[in-house]
Amino acid sequence: MDIKLDIVKSHQRISPYIHRTPILTSQMINDISGAELFFKCENFQKMGAFKMRGATNAILQLSDEQKQKGVVTHSSGNFAQALALSAKSLGIKAFIVMPSNSPEVKKKAVKGYGGIITECEPTLEDREKTAVQIQQEKGATFVHPYNDFNVILGNASAGKELLEEYPDLDLIIVPVGGGGLISGVALSAISFSNNCKVIGAEPYAVDDAYRSLQSGKIENNQTTDTIADGLKTLLGDITFNIIKNHVEKIIRVTEEEIVEAMQLIWERMKIIVEPSAAVTLAAVLKSKQEFKNKKVGMVLSGGNVDLKKLPF
Amino acid sequence: MDIKLDIVKSHQRISPYIHRTPILTSQMINDISGAELFFKCENFQKMGAFKMRGATNAILQLSDEQKQKGVVTHSSGNFAQALALSAKSLGIKAFIVMPSNSPEVKKKAVKGYGGIITECEPTLEDREKTAVQIQQEKGATFVHPYNDFNVILGNASAGKELLEEYPDLDLIIVPVGGGGLISGVALSAISFSNNCKVIGAEPYAVDDAYRSLQSGKIENNQTTDTIADGLKTLLGDITFNIIKNHVEKIIRVTEEEIVEAMQLIWERMKIIVEPSAAVTLAAVLKSKQEFKNKKVGMVLSGGNVDLKKLPF
Repeated sequence: MDIKLDIVKSHQRISPYIHRTPILTSQMINDISGAELFFKCENFQKMGAFKMRGATNAILQLSDEQKQKGVVTHSSGNFAQALALSAKSLGIKAFIVMPSNSPEVKKKAVKGYGGIITECEPTLEDREKTAVQIQQEKGATFVHPYNDFNVILGNASAGKELLEEYPDLDLIIVPVGGGGLISGVALSAISFSNNCKVIGAEPYAVDDAYRSLQSGKIENNQTTDTIADGLKTLLGDITFNIIKNHVEKIIRVTEEEIVEAMQLIWERMKIIVEPSAAVTLAAVLKSKQEFKNKKVGMVLSGGNVDLKKLPF
Repeated sequence: MDIKLDIVKSHQRISPYIHRTPILTSQMINDISGAELFFKCENFQKMGAFKMRGATNAILQLSDEQKQKGVVTHSSGNFAQALALSAKSLGIKAFIVMPSNSPEVKKKAVKGYGGIITECEPTLEDREKTAVQIQQEKGATFVHPYNDFNVILGNASAGKELLEEYPDLDLIIVPVGGGGLISGVALSAISFSNNCKVIGAEPYAVDDAYRSLQSGKIENNQTTDTIADGLKTLLGDITFNIIKNHVEKIIRVTEEEIVEAMQLIWERMKIIVEPSAAVTLAAVLKSKQEFKNKKVGMVLSGGNVDLKKLPF
């Protein structure tokens, strides 16, 4: 299996349907951090998050018969919107299982992109059960938000684009939730760089990936009380395996550090990023010595926030 | 006098000290508006607004003796910060006269850029008197925030950059406060386009520029009760003269239209713009028929907002 070729092909496949997002820099934030930071703006991606890349790649790999029957996933977050929008732009149906307690704004967004919502109880068990029902009734193909190799290959294109523009990055920092983004970026780093290391960033409050790397098996979170709502999910077997082998380490950050980094990005760069994206800068700012004078790619994973509920 | 050459020289002069800001597009907002919009992101400019262009050009035109004695202006807004920062980066002193009731956040920003603040009573009369005092005491050169030809030529570079990347724009829409930005952009349009028209956008609440074009003389505002705090200023004789001759017309928008347009930009483009910048989109959205299928440049003048006081 040729990972590099798979990433190249995935990137070609999805290119007509995604944005090649800009990479921004900020002299002010470089001065504050002491590092040279290159922000890959997936907050500018279609529907506001990198998830479009993986969702589009997964759908494009379906057979015509599968396409006709549609896709199904369970997600209350960005992947629900991503699958709905990429399905819509390819003219196929997307069934989205969402917990009944999902914020109205998220349901509205999924509907706005043409997703067909089925509500379920807010438990993982009921989410999975409801998704299986839809697979059986509609013949729809299940697409996992991150523990799916085609999704990971699609996400990898974000890392590829970053390294195409800045081939001499020393490091790339990526937020870790279910691990779909960091897995893709890590595969891109081994394929398209000489020795660029990939580091994860994660809230202390949901440091399951950190603990999984320590213990050698996929760990749970006891609570999920973090502002970084995109990072509450647990690793899957596919993402854990890639992270174990290709991610240097995971830096944990506090809630205060996330909010401070998010505010810095908003105020200084004038761009809107969600808390989950800000963990990257939080990680650099808490470990300045480690990143001093290094060229660091920062994957700003998304920009979907409720403007009525800002933490500052 | 060769305006085109003056703009080219000004642009060359300031280029090392300013950002060439990106021009963004949004399929979603194009769909909503029915026009093809090209957003010139001066919210990404140094210190967060186009004012850096004019301030830098004015300072660079000073003699060595003048530079040694510094510059002075009166402003409670973006120009105060712009003059302070451009003076700082050129190693000269900036005396800033600010009304005593200016928001603490603005004073802090000016100080952060090394500006030397003198507070005055919150009247135009006292602002001008205090500035004259500083000119006399310190020998500092007064730089007007907009009614200054070097400032206008500096601002013109924003229009020039827009037309360099999109030479076939039908129109450019620019917010109008004192008229320094729209004057510069209008001079760029006649210099660097075939027949690109320039249109102003202004809140109804401070529609002095609209009324000035009607009456043929510079009009006042009775009140200045608008969220677009950068657009409260009145035209000067230089800017009025340029606007009279080279601006097609001025579209007025309501406060609700400004907030709605601002929210659309934040939510869909994931960038932070101030209310004064959002009047451009508000103008397009209220006159959709007029802009239908037109290629329209939109000058997003700045992104300095107090994140604690959002209108949505």
